[in-house]
Amino acid sequence: MDQADQVAKAFVDHYYSTFDTNRSGLGNLYQDQSMLTFEGEKFQGSSNILAKLTGLPFQQCQHGITTVDCQPSGPAGGMLVFVSGLLVVDGGEHPLKFSQMFHLMPTPQGSFYVLNDIFRLNYA
Amino acid sequence: MDQADQVAKAFVDHYYSTFDTNRSGLGNLYQDQSMLTFEGEKFQGSSNILAKLTGLPFQQCQHGITTVDCQPSGPAGGMLVFVSGLLVVDGGEHPLKFSQMFHLMPTPQGSFYVLNDIFRLNYA
Repeated sequence: MDQADQVAKAFVDHYYSTFDTNRSGLGNLYQDQSMLTFEGEKFQGSSNILAKLTGLPFQQCQHGITTVDCQPSGPAGGMLVFVSGLLVVDGGEHPLKFSQMFHLMPTPQGSFYVLNDIFRLNYA
Repeated sequence: MDQADQVAKAFVDHYYSTFDTNRSGLGNLYQDQSMLTFEGEKFQGSSNILAKLTGLPFQQCQHGITTVDCQPSGPAGGMLVFVSGLLVVDGGEHPLKFSQMFHLMPTPQGSFYVLNDIFRLNYA
């Protein structure tokens, strides 16, 4: 696992553990120019994205990660992270398969923020 | 459907129809800096990517598209395209679900090439 893969894996672990335990904490990961497409619905900006994520109509969820792939996105230092996994909502018995991609961009502080986020459930 | 969505849809139609009818024609869509991660295996450069795609161990395939989402990827004029769909290989009875993301970058000729390509089958 090279360094980019390690960064991607660490981001993914952080993202989904925050999602599953403290959804409102995800707002720090987005900025004004960030975009989310959630099941085809588009949102822009940290506050709109956070409102969508915290407003999702379930109390509890648990993401399980199946695969994480990453690639550098170009000379600006961004990183594409592509995730597949399983999602259990409100303790349901049937996990839902999902795929999600993130485009991470570096911050001046040496961290990353999410510029692009596209989420899809993979229905049977 | 806005203009970016139309470009993304046209690219996706072109990509998969070329894949399904003339796989070797996909080489034109990649350049030297292009990257493919196919089921976790990494390839770089048009010729390596084309060798992987044309060497896949089936004679015929047919992609069916379920969803196409797109977002601009930043100031360089790139576009992220996220696809989910079904894949039938060699006339099999059970379609395989797949997810794939492309990062398209503009060419000086006003077209796009694929800088990033990540493909995953979504096993049951």
